[in-house]
Amino acid sequence: MTKLRVHNLAVSIDGFATGEGQSFETPFGHAGQRLMSWFFPTHAFTSMTGHDAEAMGRGTRGVDDAFAATTNAGIGVEVMGRRKFGPQQGPWEDESWRGWWGEEPPFHSPVIVLTHHARPDLQVGETSFLFRDASPREALDLATELAGGLDVRLGGGPTVVREFLEADLVDHLHIVVVPIVLGRGVRLWDGLESLEERFDVEVTASPSGAVHYVFTRRAL
Amino acid sequence: MTKLRVHNLAVSIDGFATGEGQSFETPFGHAGQRLMSWFFPTHAFTSMTGHDAEAMGRGTRGVDDAFAATTNAGIGVEVMGRRKFGPQQGPWEDESWRGWWGEEPPFHSPVIVLTHHARPDLQVGETSFLFRDASPREALDLATELAGGLDVRLGGGPTVVREFLEADLVDHLHIVVVPIVLGRGVRLWDGLESLEERFDVEVTASPSGAVHYVFTRRAL
Repeated sequence: MTKLRVHNLAVSIDGFATGEGQSFETPFGHAGQRLMSWFFPTHAFTSMTGHDAEAMGRGTRGVDDAFAATTNAGIGVEVMGRRKFGPQQGPWEDESWRGWWGEEPPFHSPVIVLTHHARPDLQVGETSFLFRDASPREALDLATELAGGLDVRLGGGPTVVREFLEADLVDHLHIVVVPIVLGRGVRLWDGLESLEERFDVEVTASPSGAVHYVFTRRAL
Repeated sequence: MTKLRVHNLAVSIDGFATGEGQSFETPFGHAGQRLMSWFFPTHAFTSMTGHDAEAMGRGTRGVDDAFAATTNAGIGVEVMGRRKFGPQQGPWEDESWRGWWGEEPPFHSPVIVLTHHARPDLQVGETSFLFRDASPREALDLATELAGGLDVRLGGGPTVVREFLEADLVDHLHIVVVPIVLGRGVRLWDGLESLEERFDVEVTASPSGAVHYVFTRRAL
């Protein structure tokens, strides 16, 4: 059965999953690259498309990599919020923006981009971006249909993950707490009081200082 | 040289160090005992005064206990906020409240209780509570004088710890992140953006699900 999985969602120790002031140059706002500093050195990250040949396949093989390496396994579709695709708000006035990922995005699958504003579907390399105005339930149903028996990854950002958690649709939630105090940005945990009662939680600290939380939804 | 140390300060994964609605019956408000659930089973806790003879000296000896056991070592004085002493606000209308800890509190030392409202000093067992209206710097100076060469423990709650961190007076900060989403209460991290730049941070996960963060202030 198709599971809905969140991977590598990093939050600061004060609960912010992205900083303030997102722009084309700063996808994480004032957080810069600090929330993902545990991720970039991993073998899994350096093996993704878009890296130069020299970096390709290098990288660490410790616990951070072990978690990062599970990101794509068995995934057929990604669902993401509009702010993960780009910093635009309101109607799509300029459709030349094709995401942060260059000409061969790392998805290689359909990606449903949740937006209230219509935009034609977009093929970039092996990835097709489908822009849809849908509730979490509707988005998951469409994704499940497209996934052909594989799992669906909920790619973030924090607002979208929070909405899917509120609707109790997330089966696997991998959160990475990074030991920085971000101070401002978008909070992940708001409105999710007592979330842990619906999940089993396993915790692993990495020498990098990142702490990996795996929330597995309890069987109903 | 006297150090200012914080021990066992528990926060939820969403950053609350105490819940909403503190009362005489509920020192942590709606959080109940959940923030300290890693602490109560430890040998260190069960060895504190005030436990019955049967519980005395029992308890776990794992990583949670290892951290808990360092709480009192080399401490000469505690400084605490008024809300750690009791739930009262404003002038002390009823001085019959002598703290949460019964007739032999676990401090066995002077305890400076920070309050804007005058109250006579109070001896309970081997502990003397000194009620003082003082800035963090003034409180630390008085505590250092009373500590006679030993360290000073900053006992919380979160508001007081935050004030001392803002004043950059804390040398050792032991935070325990508990995997619960508390949703409301008093936040620890507010106003402390980029705190980590002043500290070295070490992280250890416990099988209990608690994660121990040790922040050690960098040498100036």
